[in-house]
Amino acid sequence: MRILVIGATGSIGSVAATTLAERGHEVIRASRSSPVSVDITDPASIAGLFTRVGEVDGVVVASGAVPFQPLTDLDGEDYLAALTGKTLPQIEVVRQGIEHVRDGGSITLTTGVLAREPIATGAAAAMANGALESFVIGAAAEAPRGLRINAVSPNVLANSPHFHDLFPGQRPVNDEEVGRAFVLSVEGLVSGRTITV
Amino acid sequence: MRILVIGATGSIGSVAATTLAERGHEVIRASRSSPVSVDITDPASIAGLFTRVGEVDGVVVASGAVPFQPLTDLDGEDYLAALTGKTLPQIEVVRQGIEHVRDGGSITLTTGVLAREPIATGAAAAMANGALESFVIGAAAEAPRGLRINAVSPNVLANSPHFHDLFPGQRPVNDEEVGRAFVLSVEGLVSGRTITV
Repeated sequence: MRILVIGATGSIGSVAATTLAERGHEVIRASRSSPVSVDITDPASIAGLFTRVGEVDGVVVASGAVPFQPLTDLDGEDYLAALTGKTLPQIEVVRQGIEHVRDGGSITLTTGVLAREPIATGAAAAMANGALESFVIGAAAEAPRGLRINAVSPNVLANSPHFHDLFPGQRPVNDEEVGRAFVLSVEGLVSGRTITV
Repeated sequence: MRILVIGATGSIGSVAATTLAERGHEVIRASRSSPVSVDITDPASIAGLFTRVGEVDGVVVASGAVPFQPLTDLDGEDYLAALTGKTLPQIEVVRQGIEHVRDGGSITLTTGVLAREPIATGAAAAMANGALESFVIGAAAEAPRGLRINAVSPNVLANSPHFHDLFPGQRPVNDEEVGRAFVLSVEGLVSGRTITV
């Protein structure tokens, strides 16, 4: 299959891209800093990406930035920034991607454990992730042409030890486990799911 | 206890207000159209409300508007409108409410079944509700002074039959069941929970 991975230079997107390539797929790696460049906070940039890339069998989005601050320091601008930095850009990829993914193909978003488990400074991130996980339920059920829409929601990554202190007691997940979740979404039949890792 | 109910003229807020009043609480009913008026999309209006009302033992928010459109008709503005019409206003009530709720008191948000079950035209609403349900997990864990933060998430309301066709096969929930969920959040010990009805 021909799979577009957005955020392919990140710690999750690179695992998705590598895993899918190892399984024989043609993987197009896009990110802000890649030769195939895109800024998903800009709908016109997403449109330009799809024009350049053409039809695909799947899109993976592993991109988005959210502010981390203690609850009592988070202000209205921070919550808005989490939504405009992660939730709305990933949804815009779905919105536009529906026109460019072949029948029966998939669009896979990336959330994280914060949607279901609290950490200090994580309230805005939790909100941004929870929004995507419920969006996936609603959107997948209405998706045309057999398109499938899922989210992959990993716990803290074994490959990112600088984050481990923020997630005391949470089980770091390795690249193989994370990659497998994207394979399930891209090659499997599931839709409307948050695939927790 | 002294409980502020925002959205008290709505089909959920009125049930919460009536139920809590029947249980002997002093209930202050606020809404856009009430004598105690507030527009929660305006942070200054929320600030004015808390200044007028003073300290309370609990805040219930059952307010917020989201667009309903088929998935392929929802545009970027619709998703933003769902977040600025429901998610961010309810979170702003939490943000400001933390300063005005007494030790050990509660703040209760209102979401809905769309966060976990799909209906046609419901993708933006799902997103807005899911954002709040995950926010509650993160925010409650960091809340100061023993404050508790929950969401009540009812299925379609028995008291709103004009919505029943949108929710085929979902079980309409009656006022007693909805009221009980708010009692659990206000009088109980739970925190960080989405109380499904």
